[in-house]
Amino acid sequence: MQFPDTLVQDEGGRIVLLVLDGLGGLPHPETGLTELESANTPNLDRLARSASLGLQLPVGIGITPGSGPGHLSLFGYDPVQHDIGRGVLSALGVGFAVKPGDIAIRLNFATLDAEGRITDRRAGRPTDQENVRLVKKLQENVKGPGGVDVFFESEKEHRAVLVMRGRQLSAELADTDPQEEGVPPLPAKARKAEAEETARLLQVVLDSAFDVLKDEKVANGIIARGIDAYHPFPTFFERYMLRARAIAKYPMYRGVARLVGMDGARVPENDVETVDVLSESFGEYDFHFVHFKAMDSRGEDGDFAAKAKAIEAVDALIPRIEELKPDVLLITGDHSTPASMRAHSWHPVPVMIVSRWTRPQPDATFGERSCARGEIGIVPGRDLMTLALAHAGRLAKYGA
Amino acid sequence: MQFPDTLVQDEGGRIVLLVLDGLGGLPHPETGLTELESANTPNLDRLARSASLGLQLPVGIGITPGSGPGHLSLFGYDPVQHDIGRGVLSALGVGFAVKPGDIAIRLNFATLDAEGRITDRRAGRPTDQENVRLVKKLQENVKGPGGVDVFFESEKEHRAVLVMRGRQLSAELADTDPQEEGVPPLPAKARKAEAEETARLLQVVLDSAFDVLKDEKVANGIIARGIDAYHPFPTFFERYMLRARAIAKYPMYRGVARLVGMDGARVPENDVETVDVLSESFGEYDFHFVHFKAMDSRGEDGDFAAKAKAIEAVDALIPRIEELKPDVLLITGDHSTPASMRAHSWHPVPVMIVSRWTRPQPDATFGERSCARGEIGIVPGRDLMTLALAHAGRLAKYGA
Repeated sequence: MQFPDTLVQDEGGRIVLLVLDGLGGLPHPETGLTELESANTPNLDRLARSASLGLQLPVGIGITPGSGPGHLSLFGYDPVQHDIGRGVLSALGVGFAVKPGDIAIRLNFATLDAEGRITDRRAGRPTDQENVRLVKKLQENVKGPGGVDVFFESEKEHRAVLVMRGRQLSAELADTDPQEEGVPPLPAKARKAEAEETARLLQVVLDSAFDVLKDEKVANGIIARGIDAYHPFPTFFERYMLRARAIAKYPMYRGVARLVGMDGARVPENDVETVDVLSESFGEYDFHFVHFKAMDSRGEDGDFAAKAKAIEAVDALIPRIEELKPDVLLITGDHSTPASMRAHSWHPVPVMIVSRWTRPQPDATFGERSCARGEIGIVPGRDLMTLALAHAGRLAKYGA
Repeated sequence: MQFPDTLVQDEGGRIVLLVLDGLGGLPHPETGLTELESANTPNLDRLARSASLGLQLPVGIGITPGSGPGHLSLFGYDPVQHDIGRGVLSALGVGFAVKPGDIAIRLNFATLDAEGRITDRRAGRPTDQENVRLVKKLQENVKGPGGVDVFFESEKEHRAVLVMRGRQLSAELADTDPQEEGVPPLPAKARKAEAEETARLLQVVLDSAFDVLKDEKVANGIIARGIDAYHPFPTFFERYMLRARAIAKYPMYRGVARLVGMDGARVPENDVETVDVLSESFGEYDFHFVHFKAMDSRGEDGDFAAKAKAIEAVDALIPRIEELKPDVLLITGDHSTPASMRAHSWHPVPVMIVSRWTRPQPDATFGERSCARGEIGIVPGRDLMTLALAHAGRLAKYGA
């Protein structure tokens, strides 16, 4: 066990981590205010006046985080050292019980012409229902080559997951996705000699899948991406002695929480229900990770006003969360998603820690510029867990 | 290739790095304002109101950087890990084509008395023309000992460069400069056993040089300093996929840029011509390093007002640089040179990034105290390249 996990104590306060996905933003050209600064957030601003404020860098200066690294960082894991491929994240996200050594692969259903060239890398974006039918067909008809089990799982639209299990498989395989249309999918190919046999086995699986799909009108092919082996991470409980659970509507975020060993919970349909679920069995856990998605989606849409509204919707739920009386309430995002950029960005993310033990700025609000002047400074995102544990009284003094 | 270089993309905006050598300063005792805060800089202040501001530490907290480390850091190289001696910097600076394994040595012409004791460590600061004559005399008459080629190159005034090439040379040699007058130069001496043979060879070269210079009235001796082997660095293009060039009046700064593989350009005579050169072929490069020297020189003179004037002279050139429409304009120094200290110092250096993607403080100016409240925070200088690449849209998202 590494420092500072060595200081963790098995008692202390209850921590709630609220992740407002894509929270950070950039100023609107007319007002000079960011989405968060523009939003009417009486509850967050009230908390900010008694909180520790700061900015956090999920991966590092100038680095734009994907959702996986952004969350791993919030959970206290160095996201560069703990590199996880999209395949494993997708498998975890759909709730598949991955085991050490499993190879997880993201699949796209695709449309191929009579010569086997890709004409649509997303097979016309099938409905989720159609996706389920296609995946069932593959699962029932594709047999794993000798000694290898194969599992197909639905994700959404054109996306599915393939897990290969058994023997000594290697994930050192290139994508079969050529990243363009008008050419056939690439053959399975090893990136290192140790993966030659796995490449051969994957090609057998893919050939069989093509055969099963050959009479489909639209989704008559698949392409494989993000091929990745599952290596278990040290769990949240092992590192922090926290009984932790994740409450998130979207599979991807449940997946990354599972990766660090958090329990699941009833899957909420919307933000209000997210707080309902948080209230259920609240006392049975030491740590709750609660995920709100909408600000990121509206940011990626480039809709500044809608992103501000999404933040206001979360603000309105804050009093219900306060009623649960967590000892530490940590509110931040997994990355910035400025509406002006329509994408994730590298800009540091506002963070607020509400507890009894803060040095607040009495004129503070919850916004990028206010947080830049806060007590916490601009810190690596992965240090926030240490800070939350400290505020919860869960870290022993270091040294005599 | 190391993270985050792995994220670099071969497309994106154009970056201009303006280095105002020795930019950072300390308050004047009467006004309480630093050189930069005192200077009348309407253009820099206008940019500051829409820029990202911060402070950067070229080497680390409390460390006073030399010019080489200060620039390497700005170029994104850890200056402690990438230690380069002054000899190699000087050789690169004068445009000598150093090769891996070459040993580069800075020479001072010196005046010795009849007993061989140094009476002037700078030989009365000869003119550059006199320097050229002396160096030519050495190059024509000093023969390399068996298997070793020797190259003498002019630098300026009393300074020259010696490069030794061939066999298995070691740079683990002490200076022959005793750093005082009234004593003779020290003999060439190995600092490690592996360098014994190179020390012997260097002494043969130095003895021969003394013999060649023995009838000179003033420059009748040489002393050797900054002995260093050349090991190639990963280049700017390899790391960042940037076609980069350096525009600098002084050889030393062209040298450190060459060390990381930047192209050269026409050598400007003054600050105004520096911007002329920047304008020439501007579109053919992705990255321009532009060096302004005067604030450092005036800071070392201890002339507070002249240092402020030197900053104002660069400020006046800013509109012409803006006309070139760089996507990212990064303005900083390689270190601080407070006039009150008459020397480089460890104080963090103001930095400003002008791009479309900033979170400005609307009341900002470009000064040490204003930068301390900026969005960037106080960061290692070597992280600025990552940030500039991000602002230029040249870094891919990390992780899915």
